Order: sequence, then C-alpha cells, then structure tokens
Amino acid sequence: MSHFIEQLNEEQLTEVRRQMQIYSQGVKEIIPTEELENKIAKSILENKPLKIKLGLDPSAPDVHLGHTVVLNKMRQFQENGHIIQLIIGDFTGKIGDPTGKSVARKQLTDEEVKHNAKTYFEQFAKVIDMEKVELHYNSKWLSTLNFEDVIQLAGKITVARLLERDDFEERIAFGKPISLHEFFYPLMQGYDSVVLECDIELGGTDQHFNILMGRHFQEKFGKEKQVALLMPLLEGLDGVEKMSKSKKNYIGIDESPQEMYGKAMSIPDELMNKYFELVTDFTPEQIQTIKDQIETGVLHPRDAKMLLGKTIVRMYHGLEAAESAEQHFISVFQHRSLPDEIPVIDWNGKMETTIIDLLVDLKLLNSKSEARRMIENRGVRINGNKVEDTNLQLLMTDGLIVQIGKRKFVKINIQ
Amino acid sequence: MSHFIEQLNEEQLTEVRRQMQIYSQGVKEIIPTEELENKIAKSILENKPLKIKLGLDPSAPDVHLGHTVVLNKMRQFQENGHIIQLIIGDFTGKIGDPTGKSVARKQLTDEEVKHNAKTYFEQFAKVIDMEKVELHYNSKWLSTLNFEDVIQLAGKITVARLLERDDFEERIAFGKPISLHEFFYPLMQGYDSVVLECDIELGGTDQHFNILMGRHFQEKFGKEKQVALLMPLLEGLDGVEKMSKSKKNYIGIDESPQEMYGKAMSIPDELMNKYFELVTDFTPEQIQTIKDQIETGVLHPRDAKMLLGKTIVRMYHGLEAAESAEQHFISVFQHRSLPDEIPVIDWNGKMETTIIDLLVDLKLLNSKSEARRMIENRGVRINGNKVEDTNLQLLMTDGLIVQIGKRKFVKINIQ
Repeated sequence: MSHFIEQLNEEQLTEVRRQMQIYSQGVKEIIPTEELENKIAKSILENKPLKIKLGLDPSAPDVHLGHTVVLNKMRQFQENGHIIQLIIGDFTGKIGDPTGKSVARKQLTDEEVKHNAKTYFEQFAKVIDMEKVELHYNSKWLSTLNFEDVIQLAGKITVARLLERDDFEERIAFGKPISLHEFFYPLMQGYDSVVLECDIELGGTDQHFNILMGRHFQEKFGKEKQVALLMPLLEGLDGVEKMSKSKKNYIGIDESPQEMYGKAMSIPDELMNKYFELVTDFTPEQIQTIKDQIETGVLHPRDAKMLLGKTIVRMYHGLEAAESAEQHFISVFQHRSLPDEIPVIDWNGKMETTIIDLLVDLKLLNSKSEARRMIENRGVRINGNKVEDTNLQLLMTDGLIVQIGKRKFVKINIQ
Repeated sequence: MSHFIEQLNEEQLTEVRRQMQIYSQGVKEIIPTEELENKIAKSILENKPLKIKLGLDPSAPDVHLGHTVVLNKMRQFQENGHIIQLIIGDFTGKIGDPTGKSVARKQLTDEEVKHNAKTYFEQFAKVIDMEKVELHYNSKWLSTLNFEDVIQLAGKITVARLLERDDFEERIAFGKPISLHEFFYPLMQGYDSVVLECDIELGGTDQHFNILMGRHFQEKFGKEKQVALLMPLLEGLDGVEKMSKSKKNYIGIDESPQEMYGKAMSIPDELMNKYFELVTDFTPEQIQTIKDQIETGVLHPRDAKMLLGKTIVRMYHGLEAAESAEQHFISVFQHRSLPDEIPVIDWNGKMETTIIDLLVDLKLLNSKSEARRMIENRGVRINGNKVEDTNLQLLMTDGLIVQIGKRKFVKINIQ
C-alpha cells in the first residue's frame, strides 16, 4: 500500500489527526497504527469510506454493555462517514459443535439465525445507525467452499501459527484436547475479511488472534491488509470476569431503566473509571473531571456511580427514564437522607463551575463570602457528601443535589 | 464385532489358521491380530470375502520391487478369494501442493491421473489378478464434501492425535513448518476406509499412522474397524534408504531383464535375506535353506545373489528371459572363470538334495565314495565355490553350475 499520508495537504492531515484521536480513545491496541493513519488518508484522498468489520456470533443475541464498548467505537467511525460491515457468523452457527461436547455451540436453524440477527439489529439501533450498515451472512460464501477450496485455504496457514493462539497453547500445555475443526474458526473469520475486503476489524482484546488471521489471509490472497483495532474487555458486575450473558454479570441494553440503574449501582468502585470511559458518551475531558472530583473527595464514589447509572439509562432509554430510575433508586435505597420533595432549579449556566459560584448563582446564599463561610462550617453537601474544599471545581450533572444545612435542598435540572 | 472365531467348527478353524499363517509371513505388524483372525472367521461363516484396501498415489506410477512387498501380500489374500480394493488417490493428486513448495506434489490433470492409473494397472497385472480387483478413485466421494462436511470430519479428530505422527512430531521439534492442509491427507485416507468399508488396509510401516486413521474414523462413523497390516520397508540398492523412484535406488518391475538382473547383483549382501523374503516367491522353508547354505559356506553370497537376480527376472519376465539375463551377466562379468559352452543337464529330481547324491545322480561321478573323495580333495565347486562339507544340503536352482576338477562343468536346467 502506498504512503497516502505523504500526499495530503495540511487540512487533510489535520482531518486524519482528528479522526485518529477519536478512534484511539479507550483503545487497547491498534495493529498497526501507521496503517490506520494511511487508510484514513487514502479514504480522504479517494473520497471513499473505509469498511469497518464487526463479526457477530448468532447464538447469543442479547446485547449488553460489554458489546457497546465496540459498538461505541463503530459509531465513531460511522459518524465520520465510514461503513460498518456487520457479519453474522451464521455458517458457524448452523454447524454447531461437531464433537457434540459444547452445549453452547448447539446447531441453529435458519429461522433461529434470522431471529437472533433481528434481535441484534434492534438493539444495535440504539447505538449505531442501522440504516447505514452493510449486513452480511457468512454462510453466503463459506457454504460454497468445497473440500478442495478448504485445502487451498488450509495450505495458507501453518499448524504452529494456529497453536500460538492463547487458548490453544494453554490446552496443549495442560493436555486438554483440541478438536481439529476448532482450527477452522479463525480461518473462517480470516476468510470473511478476504471476501469483504475489510479495512479495519474491531473486537475485544480476546479477538487479537482471530483478527490478525484476517490480515494474514488477506495478504495470502493478495489483498490489502486490514487493521486490527482492539478494545479493552469490560469486566462485568462481579468485577472479575469479562461481562457476558453466561456469567450473569451483565447489564443488557434492553433491560428496564430501573434494572439497569440498580445493576449499575453494583459496579465495583475500582471499575467506575473504566465504565465511564468505555460505555458512556462522556468526553475524555469530562471523565477526567469526574476522576479528579472523586480523588479530591468532592464527588463521593456512590454519587459518581449514580451519575454513571443515570448516564447509562439515559443512553438507552432517554433522560426522563433515567431520572425516574434514579428517583426510584433514591426513594427505595436512600429516602431516609433526603426529603420527599426537593425543589428543582433549572440550570443553563456553565457545565463546569466552582462550588462558591454555584451556591451564589443558585441564590442559595447571598454572597461569595457567605458561601465560603458555610463551606468552612461544613454546612454544604453535594449529592449528600460534605464539601470540604472552598475551591472545589464541579461538573454540573443532571439531578445533582445541593444541600445547605440540614433542611435546604435543591436539585439541578440541566436545560 | 462378535467373536466369530468361537462359532467355527474344527475344519473352519484350521482354515483360519492356514490363512493367518500365510498372511503373517514377512509381516512387520498386524493391528490387531485377533481382529484379523475374527474377520477371516466371519468371512468363512458368512461366505463373504474380505475387502483388502491399498491406496495409491497417482503421481508416481512406476512400480518397483518396493511396491511388490505389499502387492505380493495382496496376491495372497486374492488367492484365498478376498477382494482387493485399489484406491487411486486422485483427489489429492488433483489438488497438488497448495503451498506451492513441493515440486513432487504438482497438480495433475484428469488425463494425467487416468494415464498414471493405467500405468499402475499394467504393472500390477504382473503380480495380482487385475480382473478381480475393485477400482476406486477417491475424488468420487471427496470432491462432493463441502466445508460443513469437512468440519464435521475434522470434529472427529484432535490436533494432539495428528501431531503424534512421526514426521509431524519431528517437524514440530525442529521448528519446521507444517501447513494445515497436510493434516488432511491422513483424514482423507481414513475417510476412504469409511466410505469403502474396508476390512484390512495394507501398507508399509511408514503408513502406520495413516492406516490407523482408517480405524479411527471407521469407529467414529459407527463402522466396523479395519485391521492394519504393515509390511517392512524394503531398502533400495544403496542399502540405506527406502526403495523409491526419487532416490534412484530401485528396481522397476517394468525394467528389462538385463537391467533388472544387473541391478539385483548390486544389492548389498546384508540385504539379501530380506529381498528373498519380501520380493521372491520362495517359501519360508526354501529361504531358510538358502540362508543355511550361505552360512555354512556352501552357497557363495555372489551365487545367492545371482539366484535372487534370476528369480526376480523370472517373476516379471519368465524363465527364459531370466536365464539369458544371467547368461549375459556371466559372459560379461564372469566369463574368465567359466567356459563359453557348458553342457546343460535337465533336472526333475528332488529340489533339495545332498551334494554327494547330486554328483552321483548327475552321473558326474560313479559312486558315492568317489564323490566323497573328490569333495575331500577339494575338487568340487558349486557356482564356482569350493564345497568343503561332504554332507552339504543343496537347494536345486535353475542354472546351478556344478564343477568337477578344472574342466568339467554342468549346468542344471530345472524341469
């Protein structure tokens, strides 16, 4: 591939850098970065969108926040005009597990595959624009391969290379059997990229090996190699295992607002930052502010978590549902510390402000000096937490509760 | 499989034992022996011939003595009424080497495959009755498999099991690449046995792994397992490497009598017994006599080798050609030690006799005592070698030259 990057003018170069910055957010690894830059450069020069591949297993169509890590990244590409290629791995799904050992890999009928795909799409529509997505079922090409084609394909990869895959290596080391057909799953995934001429394949870091297979086979078939864009894996509510349906540690994006919010409140504190980064629509700067506030004690972790929960509900059910989910949570779990009725104050001021400015702007206190005194006397709380720093910087969030003394509460309504 | 052997009467049991004795001759390994016995028993009880499989690579159709080790064994089965299944591995041949690395595995056209198969058959006709042979081309079934079938097949074997194959193990150990498609050759060979429901597969010991694949896959497909019958590998004229065309250490069964004879004379002495056992039609008893005679010095190794050469030529070109090949060899390489014209004496007596009886029977000497004296005086030679033992046992062979004193020669013509 030529060095398109060198053919760009200043403006185009700026655009490449802008896109690169967005795509790099929260990413674990880009293999290789230069090629991604070059592909973006090419797409600008030729005015041709890139093809961004995401493979989907049709056997488990419940979309949860773990999936949205990748989906959010896809949306960024989509927002910049690139094309999302969703590939339903129906060929694999229809085969099931030939050894009959895995219950998870039971054979799916055509109807089940279609139904599951539809279920996916309905949920994906909450994150990406499904109207602009290219849909593919890989049985379309894989089912046409005959034994000779398979042997030609197998001739393009060595056994040693396949054995390098972490889970294979581990099973060999522990003497656990690998059935030969398992070698074909990475081959198929790689071949899909050959057929669809994908530019970029997205996946979790657990897809590292399989996505590199795409590069390998594209090269062997004389095609331009795709770039691997690997996202971190999101641990589930248990804080240990990767979020997945089977582990029951997930927040499904189709769950009710109350359920979603309640589950979000059970996310371990030490994972909060990761959740803010990977599953919310906050900018890196906003997330940094939240982190700082938690660190300085301005924002109690519980309140940060409430913000997280509310944000997640807002993203999938809208603001109103988010507020009532929060309200429900508060009334059930926190009603003792808050009055039944809190006056709401509309806020259309700056999203970042200082605690003293806020108290004065809200007319809760009459002057900055009065506000400072009240803080020094430990009479001010934000979301129930005592404010101890008179210079506190605040990120305004919807539903923020400001308390003066024992009885005076207001709740912020962001306009 | 039931224990058919237990249902046999005495006569049938004797027949099983008779066949077992024949099939065991010269064999390196039978896996497992009891199953072979039981299959023979079944074939007797049900009056149904066994199916004896031999797979052939269509890329190298020159048949040499190395091949006849297995062919001779097949003939024994055929002589007992069993059916030979010859499988031309044309599917593999048509694929060639997908990595493009092996020149030997170049892709063959349909015409080349047919031509090579025909070449095989013409040569095989010298050893087995081709009229009674079942012919199969494995592309018939292998080319109908699609990717899903291949995955189902691959699901029935583990990677670890395949890596046990000696050459794979070695290549892994030395870091030499194994291309994934190579794993399919043993699978295909095994699947051939499933399709043809073979009872026994014959091959050299280098086919140990591949032939056991047949047992493995037959079992996985719920079929009766074949028995592996492994013949020793025949070293070529270099005495080291397995006889093969590529090593140029072979005697082709289509070569001219003189060439065949001349090449046979270059067989290393230490391999003579093995050649007698594996490529001649001598009985085990006859071979034992030859061994004993070499050991006691009665038979000079050179003469044993001439006997071997003549026998090989006789088997593929008939007795007359064998005699003139020997004569040619003698006149060119040994004429100094023998007169131009040797009187020929027809022999229709016993094939095993003593030296003294022979000298009297041939009327070369008048009495046993005269004969004994002549031997004691070192005046008797067999094929140019002094006879030192008056009790020497002789195996009569065609062209045997008996010499009394310096000038008296006769040559035996077996009738």
